[in-house]
Amino acid sequence: MAPQEHPVSLTGLETPCLVLDRHRMARNVERLRAHLARLEVPLRPHLKTVKSSDVARLVLQRPDGPAAVSTLQEAEQFGASGIRDLLYAVGVTPNKLDRIAAIRARGIDLKVIVDSVEAAAAVAAKSCETGDAIPTLIEIDCDGHRAGVPADDAAHLAAIGKALHQGGADLRGVMTHAGESYSCVGAAALEAMAEQERSRAVACAEVLRQAGLPSPMVSVGSTPTAFFVRNLDGVTEIRAGVFPFFDLFMTGLGVCDRDDIALSVLTTVIGHQRQKGWILVDAGWMAMSRDRGTARQAVDQGYGLICDLSGHHYPDLVMVDAHQEQGVLAIRAGSAAKLPDLAVGDMLRILPNHACATGAQHDGYFVVETGSTEVRAHWSRFRGW
Amino acid sequence: MAPQEHPVSLTGLETPCLVLDRHRMARNVERLRAHLARLEVPLRPHLKTVKSSDVARLVLQRPDGPAAVSTLQEAEQFGASGIRDLLYAVGVTPNKLDRIAAIRARGIDLKVIVDSVEAAAAVAAKSCETGDAIPTLIEIDCDGHRAGVPADDAAHLAAIGKALHQGGADLRGVMTHAGESYSCVGAAALEAMAEQERSRAVACAEVLRQAGLPSPMVSVGSTPTAFFVRNLDGVTEIRAGVFPFFDLFMTGLGVCDRDDIALSVLTTVIGHQRQKGWILVDAGWMAMSRDRGTARQAVDQGYGLICDLSGHHYPDLVMVDAHQEQGVLAIRAGSAAKLPDLAVGDMLRILPNHACATGAQHDGYFVVETGSTEVRAHWSRFRGW
Repeated sequence: MAPQEHPVSLTGLETPCLVLDRHRMARNVERLRAHLARLEVPLRPHLKTVKSSDVARLVLQRPDGPAAVSTLQEAEQFGASGIRDLLYAVGVTPNKLDRIAAIRARGIDLKVIVDSVEAAAAVAAKSCETGDAIPTLIEIDCDGHRAGVPADDAAHLAAIGKALHQGGADLRGVMTHAGESYSCVGAAALEAMAEQERSRAVACAEVLRQAGLPSPMVSVGSTPTAFFVRNLDGVTEIRAGVFPFFDLFMTGLGVCDRDDIALSVLTTVIGHQRQKGWILVDAGWMAMSRDRGTARQAVDQGYGLICDLSGHHYPDLVMVDAHQEQGVLAIRAGSAAKLPDLAVGDMLRILPNHACATGAQHDGYFVVETGSTEVRAHWSRFRGW
Repeated sequence: MAPQEHPVSLTGLETPCLVLDRHRMARNVERLRAHLARLEVPLRPHLKTVKSSDVARLVLQRPDGPAAVSTLQEAEQFGASGIRDLLYAVGVTPNKLDRIAAIRARGIDLKVIVDSVEAAAAVAAKSCETGDAIPTLIEIDCDGHRAGVPADDAAHLAAIGKALHQGGADLRGVMTHAGESYSCVGAAALEAMAEQERSRAVACAEVLRQAGLPSPMVSVGSTPTAFFVRNLDGVTEIRAGVFPFFDLFMTGLGVCDRDDIALSVLTTVIGHQRQKGWILVDAGWMAMSRDRGTARQAVDQGYGLICDLSGHHYPDLVMVDAHQEQGVLAIRAGSAAKLPDLAVGDMLRILPNHACATGAQHDGYFVVETGSTEVRAHWSRFRGW
């Protein structure tokens, strides 16, 4: 549906579709900006969550960036929309370097990351081949979670740094992502993880500097650590992705309240299995994604928590099962809440486990204000690699 | 990437992307056709898996159908490509009836399903309003799995039938889907489930007929029951969806062999965490989907089983964890297999848990023959609702 065709109310939309509460989003963005302003460190939003130039404009402080991306498709799309300072925050593979060189040749300052001498050598070789020194950060593993050079492996770090700096690339420093923060619950654990992320990244930058190598950038961050960090000495920027939308997983971590979640899926009641206490709706895993992140948290939200059309949640009503285009709603096990009396055709909104995964299933956002069902705009999303 | 631009080899593709082995697919399609030909019942392929007119042409026996769809987007796309006999196999909601009427007005024989008097009344009212009696089947719950009228609730069934037939819709009969077959392992259990699916659907059609209502159609099916059914007395058509591609979940059920799986995700090695025995690749959950269906089977395949570029699998090498754009490969717990020696930039293919979910993450198929890395074609997919 094109923007100009959007109906004036959510009740006129075909379901399932994605709804974005722009008032909640603005509040979420402002909260992180204010926190980081106090710490005097700039934010580099990770746009993998939003994948929309319309949303990016409201998330970035300046139209030309900085921002992070997870695919070259995002780099191309956001680059074309005017964002110039981009970090491709996934370890680069040699077969992507031609496309990266082409993006950079269009005036977009796209930076890459590596965590091996092999990848560093490939970036250096491409830099020499094109005459454009590709700006590169070394990824640090600060928590054993994913990729990156182990933070205590100074020899490996220096070897990668030399392969970049002496090989012809533009060594910019280090970056890390505390993915393990997604397993930390509560303020104390998140503060400790944020300090671990900071201190290990800063120490690795020092390793490079002591080896005579440059490290002007020290880039760290995840949404949980960004909100709970108290000290950013030595850090030059913070990255965070899901904070504009938030989701039930972030609620489970204590990073936000349920009423901060700005993203929901609009759905329509198909029918009932009354003996079982089930309500069937036309949003299944295709609309919600298969993400079940809250299954490992204290409160399992199934495939999502159910709200009415205005965004007020029904106590303990969750999507307990999902088929491709059908969801099964029921009262959470152990709850004394009563199944609401909903008729075929009634419309609902579903808060997702994981905004990045649910958003990726849709081609755009229908935009509303908190508590209202009036559709104010339609903003497109893109996808692919 | 447009068809004419495709490189001649998989090694020239940017990753991640979707690869389709058309020889395996043709063999899978032929196997089901031959089985159903012996039983003398026609197949109505469910095109929710393939979402591609190029693939549909190879799956259908006749270019005009029959076929089943899971969204009205599919009905519109496949209708525009010439498929005329379509069943929208998800319970219809009142807010979709205008669009359904518009599709039917374009000469596409789109049928709908209902499982309540309320939905039946809405379909009947729309039929009267437009003067086009919408062909409608009543969904039967044959196994307690999802939607549908309980197979033993004759009074409810007859009430829905009357609401349709006397209200002005075109009552065509009954349909059911044995979703519980996805929890049956082995031939005996699948044969028993297929007989349950058949017998309950046929009995419900008899209930309608005894109430003086028409039931020319008795539509049943799921991929597992379609392959294991031995008797189709009283059934007029079989539906199945995932059979052209198959996947690791179907392998776990014993419906296919691993070497029948026609769909894979092409990926490139980003790096290693050697102390942990991890290989990092550039396909994460965005490329594989979050589907972890095999987690509840005897052999948990993680987010997918890893093959080399030609499609030969590495023993017990699976994607043990997935981030948005990164996958973590490791040897399955308990296996004595050795981690293969893979370098940064090496390319791999990953067999998915669930072809419907993995396919949905991509915009097209790069087509190869079994054992070859030569790209023969690019076929587009669509998505959305």
